[in-house]
Amino acid sequence: MHDVMHGIDILVSEVGPRDGLQSISSVMSTDAKKAWIKAEADAGVREIEVGSFVPPKLLPQLADTAEIVHYARSIPGLQVAALVPNLKGAEGAIGAGAHKITIPLSVSETHSLKNLRKTHEQVFEEIRNIVALIKGLPADVRPHFEGSLSTAFGCTIEGDVPERKVVEVAERLIALGCDEVGLADTTGYANPAQVKSMVKAIWAAVGRDKLTGIHVHNTRGLGLANVLAALDLGLTTFDSSLGGLGGCPFAPGASGNIVTEDLVFMLDSMGLKTGIDLEKLLKVREIVKAAVPDAMYGFTPDAGLPKGYVQGGSGWGVSNKLAAE
Amino acid sequence: MHDVMHGIDILVSEVGPRDGLQSISSVMSTDAKKAWIKAEADAGVREIEVGSFVPPKLLPQLADTAEIVHYARSIPGLQVAALVPNLKGAEGAIGAGAHKITIPLSVSETHSLKNLRKTHEQVFEEIRNIVALIKGLPADVRPHFEGSLSTAFGCTIEGDVPERKVVEVAERLIALGCDEVGLADTTGYANPAQVKSMVKAIWAAVGRDKLTGIHVHNTRGLGLANVLAALDLGLTTFDSSLGGLGGCPFAPGASGNIVTEDLVFMLDSMGLKTGIDLEKLLKVREIVKAAVPDAMYGFTPDAGLPKGYVQGGSGWGVSNKLAAE
Repeated sequence: MHDVMHGIDILVSEVGPRDGLQSISSVMSTDAKKAWIKAEADAGVREIEVGSFVPPKLLPQLADTAEIVHYARSIPGLQVAALVPNLKGAEGAIGAGAHKITIPLSVSETHSLKNLRKTHEQVFEEIRNIVALIKGLPADVRPHFEGSLSTAFGCTIEGDVPERKVVEVAERLIALGCDEVGLADTTGYANPAQVKSMVKAIWAAVGRDKLTGIHVHNTRGLGLANVLAALDLGLTTFDSSLGGLGGCPFAPGASGNIVTEDLVFMLDSMGLKTGIDLEKLLKVREIVKAAVPDAMYGFTPDAGLPKGYVQGGSGWGVSNKLAAE
Repeated sequence: MHDVMHGIDILVSEVGPRDGLQSISSVMSTDAKKAWIKAEADAGVREIEVGSFVPPKLLPQLADTAEIVHYARSIPGLQVAALVPNLKGAEGAIGAGAHKITIPLSVSETHSLKNLRKTHEQVFEEIRNIVALIKGLPADVRPHFEGSLSTAFGCTIEGDVPERKVVEVAERLIALGCDEVGLADTTGYANPAQVKSMVKAIWAAVGRDKLTGIHVHNTRGLGLANVLAALDLGLTTFDSSLGGLGGCPFAPGASGNIVTEDLVFMLDSMGLKTGIDLEKLLKVREIVKAAVPDAMYGFTPDAGLPKGYVQGGSGWGVSNKLAAE
């Protein structure tokens, strides 16, 4: 992913077209999705998870994912990501040209059965087959393959999810051949102390290069605080959803990705380079709002940027530091 | 304040009855205020800013502040705080028996003129007089006197507020005899990097014991991330408002204290002792909602506590750490 990170400190990975839309019953038109993805890429977003290769019967909202991946691939500089639940999904994603594919695995096995309708062993078997599929491809079309550790910070069914269990599953995913693991607070249970502890534990087990990103929700309002904790440790990829759209439809009361606009404002105001133009990003909301009204929120969009705010600088307030005198 | 901190790591200072109510046009009855304060103290909140000694003509919502201070003083273990804009207000607060009085000073002088209708020099003169008043009192009735640095992270009128200016005003307040300075993100412009830089700069100028708390807003969604930044440095007092009620009525588009419930959930889940019972705290909302419906929000209240959550423990997820094996 070195090309994606060129010139930026932090990769903001937009997951709204997948994680957002899958939790909304109304179906967004293919044209509206394309306009959204194009506009967000134009605003400087470098990675977008554009859909999920699940049976259309299960998620009709994402039935056009192959077409969307194909379209998104035509946008220069955009890393196109897709979710795949199994080998069949991976075949679809690779066929459509996805740069990155992610298979979710709920560390809580009860949640795994409800969400993917599979035991851990069954998911491991899918992963084994996907790795074999990828290895059989010419090097230049192999996608980056991530195993995402869902419900890593707690489960709406089982409650507490032991850290050692998360680490064990992470080790297994890497052993099976995943390029990387992702860490997902599917249920919005995480706190900053837990994030730090979990990231360190996984790094100790599989290596720092095997975990670079985190997917947190804002279910209990702690989303950006959890990002800050991960940022402090040195994670560089953060998932978010425009307008906080969506969440996990299989975890009751657990909706709510962090808001891309608020995340980008935080990072940008801290002087971190995201490559994203905030004002352009705020305008992308209009496209999504027109298609799915009433499903969005966001503090920065409501409040607007601070008076005199300069984007992409060395940080708000920093120019007038005492140290600079 | 050693008695207030006994047995806890972090002091959550509820400001809803002052900062929350002053921004709402409807007037809460004195009885409802008393019930709110009593219930929140019963939930374990140890400091509440119960009102402001401003002319009733200006803020009729807070006209009963003297009675409220007097009542709150009858609650064992509760530190009763009040805002005072000037000497007259301080006389009222001290007469009613407030343990702590806070005078706000907008570091942005334009904001000061609009908010307090005073230049900096005029506020300094009030502070000088208040310090003289306090020094003339018997030692056992002297209130703790804080000078609060408002608009410290940016101003809705002036924009950027130079860090050196904030530090200069902090030095002046301490030189004039304030026991402590407070740091307030009145406008919701702050970011975590700025919070850390600002706290360090003020500590370097006036000493660590002269700044122990911060008042942040959630205007752009960064409230709890800013708390985390301050927490990392070692600040121990955080202002918040039940249900995120209120904000600064003189800073347009700048409403929104952080939500007490979300703050307490974050601290408690990190294993920090606040002395507050989260379930009892969540029930206090009913009292406030009955009096001022539709003015409250909060993520933790909407989502509920995580399944299997144990309050006041050593931190969510911590019991199952690898390190504990």
